[in-house]
Amino acid sequence: MKKNCIVAQSGGPTVAINASLAGVIQGVIDSDCFDKIYGSIHGIQGVFKKQFIDLTDSTEEFIDNLKKSPAMYLGSCRYKLPDITTDKEAYENLFSIFEDMNVGAFFYIGGNDSMDTVDKLSQYAASIGSDIRVMGVPKTIDNDLIETDHTPGFGSAAKYIASSMREMAYDTYIYDISSVLIVEIMGRDAGWLTAASALARNDFSQAPHLIYLPEVAFDKDQFIADIKQLMPTTKNIIIAVSEGIRDKDGNYISATTAAADKFGHAQLSGTGKCLETLVKERLGVKVRSVEINVLQRCAAHMASATDLEESFQLGIKAVNLASDGHTGLMTTLTRVSDTPYKVDISYTPVSNVANKAKSVPKEWINPEGNNVTEDMINYIKPLVIGEVVQSYENGISAYLPVKHLVN
Amino acid sequence: MKKNCIVAQSGGPTVAINASLAGVIQGVIDSDCFDKIYGSIHGIQGVFKKQFIDLTDSTEEFIDNLKKSPAMYLGSCRYKLPDITTDKEAYENLFSIFEDMNVGAFFYIGGNDSMDTVDKLSQYAASIGSDIRVMGVPKTIDNDLIETDHTPGFGSAAKYIASSMREMAYDTYIYDISSVLIVEIMGRDAGWLTAASALARNDFSQAPHLIYLPEVAFDKDQFIADIKQLMPTTKNIIIAVSEGIRDKDGNYISATTAAADKFGHAQLSGTGKCLETLVKERLGVKVRSVEINVLQRCAAHMASATDLEESFQLGIKAVNLASDGHTGLMTTLTRVSDTPYKVDISYTPVSNVANKAKSVPKEWINPEGNNVTEDMINYIKPLVIGEVVQSYENGISAYLPVKHLVN
Repeated sequence: MKKNCIVAQSGGPTVAINASLAGVIQGVIDSDCFDKIYGSIHGIQGVFKKQFIDLTDSTEEFIDNLKKSPAMYLGSCRYKLPDITTDKEAYENLFSIFEDMNVGAFFYIGGNDSMDTVDKLSQYAASIGSDIRVMGVPKTIDNDLIETDHTPGFGSAAKYIASSMREMAYDTYIYDISSVLIVEIMGRDAGWLTAASALARNDFSQAPHLIYLPEVAFDKDQFIADIKQLMPTTKNIIIAVSEGIRDKDGNYISATTAAADKFGHAQLSGTGKCLETLVKERLGVKVRSVEINVLQRCAAHMASATDLEESFQLGIKAVNLASDGHTGLMTTLTRVSDTPYKVDISYTPVSNVANKAKSVPKEWINPEGNNVTEDMINYIKPLVIGEVVQSYENGISAYLPVKHLVN
Repeated sequence: MKKNCIVAQSGGPTVAINASLAGVIQGVIDSDCFDKIYGSIHGIQGVFKKQFIDLTDSTEEFIDNLKKSPAMYLGSCRYKLPDITTDKEAYENLFSIFEDMNVGAFFYIGGNDSMDTVDKLSQYAASIGSDIRVMGVPKTIDNDLIETDHTPGFGSAAKYIASSMREMAYDTYIYDISSVLIVEIMGRDAGWLTAASALARNDFSQAPHLIYLPEVAFDKDQFIADIKQLMPTTKNIIIAVSEGIRDKDGNYISATTAAADKFGHAQLSGTGKCLETLVKERLGVKVRSVEINVLQRCAAHMASATDLEESFQLGIKAVNLASDGHTGLMTTLTRVSDTPYKVDISYTPVSNVANKAKSVPKEWINPEGNNVTEDMINYIKPLVIGEVVQSYENGISAYLPVKHLVN
């Protein structure tokens, strides 16, 4: 008798994480190794609560729409399993539910916190001699997982950021007066997304003219000096900045310039807003800041076809590896060549990935710390290629309904 | 001997204002009434400075690309002509340049400040017996011009806002915890753009659950009460709010809650940020604010095909009216029917439009002042219909180069 399997999603949303879910479902249908595939609602917490939806009879149309839908069809959670050596109860609970449901494999799609869950569950399975396979499928717009060339979700976010940056440049160039535009991009610890804004550059527009990443200590005086140096030659100066930039002592710029409201409460402004105030005070030039905010992780209307296809394949691969008897792995992308761009779908022990983070290498940042190099641009370039034809309902982007998440 | 003509753009950018420019060029080519068509760089100021580009030999490909390019191909200005009765010098300057260039018509594409320019120039022409025709073509994302059913640029902004609102709703629904999301939308005086977010609603998602427009006095206590009332039934409450909401005394909400920074300088936060702080303090619930910012007026990748086509036709019409000897008019859209949606391209004396603004009518806002009615939704619905196939260059949205605006 064939066993069943469970799939779940966890962490922050991306445009591509449903493509990996679609891949897992497709893999189960194609391999015919499992009887039923259940989706756990709200990540691993849905297993504890026994909240499942049956995905076994997914149609081709459903899978295709799922591939293109933003955020997380199964919902998410922010839950970290306790240490195995000190607290076994959660594990016993989960594995008893797995057993009751005749589960042979658990697939978890997420970032490095989720890979910690995959790691712990596979370790626990080994410790009790269980043959349940536990597999990870990567995702994160932040591109900060190690052992994989890049992460699913990053390419789509990069495409949105660079396209929006270009549109904002057009918006900025129209007036015949000097101005500074500061665009704040996601990334608390890693500057990959902010670096992606450099793809907006072309023959006539060099925006963003300056790029600041969390990997380089941020110096306000140097920042003002950088702008001043450009002003004689560049009428409209456009700047990309990571939300997570910190000074040399490691303090977030957004925190150090936090304003107090009229009741004396500290009020955390965004990094872009703080730099806007700084430029206004120090240079007196027309300045605006824009925080791209959550749209960079959910704007499925600007998804990268390359990103969605890779995410889909990573899901399929996880099923095939589990079918072959593997466990405790995360599927990965290995870049074989840049031109033509080619990646292999591969895998690594999840213990190599969990709780680690990949920063932008120093050699991909210019010596002045205010720009990225051509190597960085060449690395990101192939990841944004290809457009996805989306559906519109009465002129508005339409995606799979997620009734089970909305009350 | 045929005369020449000049076209210029002015005010804030929209996704559709280049479509009107394309229409003016197409109209000149088709009507064959003018010898040369010159584009004035940076609005009427380009005439003073004699900064022109020759658009006479525009190819079909150029016109098609222009139609789909965001912001303003000719650049903009914020310049208001002086009162005719007190200061004639500017007018004498302009008309002597027109005469030198053998100009027979001037076409100005812009919002109600620009229509003030059209009005004054046509009055001056009449006062000196000049036969130079001066014509206005409307644009503004704000949809606040009178005498026209709606304004070019509004439909594309509405499409972007509603689609982004839906994507942010997907992003918000994934967690199994209560939350409030506040989305700040442009509109200092009129709530049309914020109202457009209601188009994001469908069978399973009622986001935005609350909508606040500048047309209704904003009451912070009532705002908190509105959220509290929804909390028992709605896990994720999503709120659309105009940047320009004011209290009953007419003070902007963003100004009244402005924070002072550590040096004691007043710091103007956005409206959304202020309400985020208010919700955090009063309700202690997870809350986030997003300011859509300039992307709502420059995201050409989400243009409404209906909007671009109407904008194009309004440009053509202005040329045809001038060719027929008319002057001092603004072309307009008159809605003939809702289903099927049909508009006539018409016109009105520009003096009817200049310096006036159209607010959202009270009867399209619910009695509680926290939502819009079905009539409002039905009014906006046809304006967002149709998608535009955009070009991509290496995976990034690509538009006509504006080398002449960038230094």
